[in-house]
Amino acid sequence: MQQIQRPTIALTLGDAAGIGAELIAKLIDKIKDTSDAHVILVGDTWLWEQGQKLASTHIELPIIDSFEDAKKQPDVYFLPVQSIDAALVHHGEVNAACGKAVLDVLRLCLDAAKNNEIDAICFAPLNKNAMKLGGLNFDDELHFFADYLGVDGYFCEFNTLGSIWTSRISSHIPLKDVSQWVTQERILAASKLMYSSLQNAGIAQPRIAVAAFNPHGGDGGLCGREEVETIIPAVQELNKQGYPIAGPFPADTIFLKVRDGHYDAVVTMYHDQGQIAIKLLGFEKGVTVQGGLPVPITTPAHGTAFDIAGQGKANVEATYQAYQIAKRMANTVVLNRT
Amino acid sequence: MQQIQRPTIALTLGDAAGIGAELIAKLIDKIKDTSDAHVILVGDTWLWEQGQKLASTHIELPIIDSFEDAKKQPDVYFLPVQSIDAALVHHGEVNAACGKAVLDVLRLCLDAAKNNEIDAICFAPLNKNAMKLGGLNFDDELHFFADYLGVDGYFCEFNTLGSIWTSRISSHIPLKDVSQWVTQERILAASKLMYSSLQNAGIAQPRIAVAAFNPHGGDGGLCGREEVETIIPAVQELNKQGYPIAGPFPADTIFLKVRDGHYDAVVTMYHDQGQIAIKLLGFEKGVTVQGGLPVPITTPAHGTAFDIAGQGKANVEATYQAYQIAKRMANTVVLNRT
Repeated sequence: MQQIQRPTIALTLGDAAGIGAELIAKLIDKIKDTSDAHVILVGDTWLWEQGQKLASTHIELPIIDSFEDAKKQPDVYFLPVQSIDAALVHHGEVNAACGKAVLDVLRLCLDAAKNNEIDAICFAPLNKNAMKLGGLNFDDELHFFADYLGVDGYFCEFNTLGSIWTSRISSHIPLKDVSQWVTQERILAASKLMYSSLQNAGIAQPRIAVAAFNPHGGDGGLCGREEVETIIPAVQELNKQGYPIAGPFPADTIFLKVRDGHYDAVVTMYHDQGQIAIKLLGFEKGVTVQGGLPVPITTPAHGTAFDIAGQGKANVEATYQAYQIAKRMANTVVLNRT
Repeated sequence: MQQIQRPTIALTLGDAAGIGAELIAKLIDKIKDTSDAHVILVGDTWLWEQGQKLASTHIELPIIDSFEDAKKQPDVYFLPVQSIDAALVHHGEVNAACGKAVLDVLRLCLDAAKNNEIDAICFAPLNKNAMKLGGLNFDDELHFFADYLGVDGYFCEFNTLGSIWTSRISSHIPLKDVSQWVTQERILAASKLMYSSLQNAGIAQPRIAVAAFNPHGGDGGLCGREEVETIIPAVQELNKQGYPIAGPFPADTIFLKVRDGHYDAVVTMYHDQGQIAIKLLGFEKGVTVQGGLPVPITTPAHGTAFDIAGQGKANVEATYQAYQIAKRMANTVVLNRT
């Protein structure tokens, strides 16, 4: 009888000044069934202990020396590192040392991913400002990941909420310039990446909708030309290539259709188009998936919550969802490898 | 003892091919207390009877010959008109005759408003295409109202949902051009109109938020300049003039604050910014208020629902809310007149 190969997932504690360690303690406490994955918590011993204290958990994890040691059997393991001195950390403060530590731990995990020692990463919230002070030379962690992993294809962030996924073909761009980003090339790349990512997350036949750009979907070209000139031809080309992508749909009604289960995902045209909707639909459950990388990487959509750091109040729901998505996508990585 | 003067509100049946007559029958059935307003239903007898049949109501309204006849005592009255022949109407079909009839009935009500015979209008859904075929020479009914009433000040549509109001400083404009509409003048006018309209609707001290334009509210000018150059100075000027308006707030979080009761209203910068949110928050309760006119005019936010016209299935909730807002605003008109 062939043994089923289980995926290996790395967890990190995020910014030490935030709610990350507390969240990961609550997450591991919540993972009752440890038989379906090899989980490796990578972090500083003092921080993990502090997280457990805040979460009021008393979990004893088997300690390992390397990622490879987790291969023996499915379980949750602890791989201790020394990334930051406890004396340097104050809850709720932006801190270069915390940012540098986050980068060091993530690099360790990315190296493990490159070596096929792990199949996914789920990281606790980090603080971009701290990371920039600590040496991050990119706009955000996604560009750091893509650079470190040598990605040269299309990559983007997915925002997910329960079974709803969204992505955007433009992000932190002044709204008056966004029209320039609405290109057939970007719509095709974003839609295909959404399609393959949803399949990797376990949805065999993803139902994806593309949002329109202008009010009322441009009213047939009377109120903006992007639909007629770019978005409709892009959807037609996608259909021609075999992707059953629908749209464009007016932005103010497509999210109702998605909420009601008619589609799994929306490819949006600009930042607030999707973000207004996703936050109203239930931000506390939101997960960010870094799409287009060779290794699945997920994280709760919320931040380090400096205002409640160190108080034991953090809600683990989004982190739990982030872990679940990482596990599903890691399963696909394992299947594709064998 | 001085007699309390009650407001007079005209109701119209909307497009005869839609769900309007059915809705108005359900509305009048729902208005249990007829002691706080003089209500005048203006419409064709056959259509009112058809509406009652669809709504399964058996209401006998006192018939009057003119708007003035309703002044005797608060009650719901019926002012019959002949605006359209029953034989011309087919449920669910766009029809020039229906559009012309809608315009004729509305003109009758607007004339009554000009003569101070009524204090508010609440109209059932109409169909813009039918009205254009029937002689409407404007983009929408709001511009028709403003022209007919000789309005030369700032006017705009409010979208309301329960206690939440929104307006927008630009509407059916291609998104790439919207930045040009973000001017201090428009933000000041829209905010002041929102303030006075909320006061007219019975909120003594309105709490109004202004939305930002760019993602993350422009990130201090790094991601778009409209906030720094236009929106922030406009809010400061409003505060200087005594309006306690707050903002600008990033568009993807302001609606959470409004939903949670921290503000009564949001002045948005473009169509979909507010519409994505308001539709997700509960479109079936939405009401459109025509703001900036000398007479308050309200209508349910939904349309003629041609797909369910003639079936008795129409939901009266939004129409009931539209009537309630019209009544509150009409009360203010009466108070200001005395």
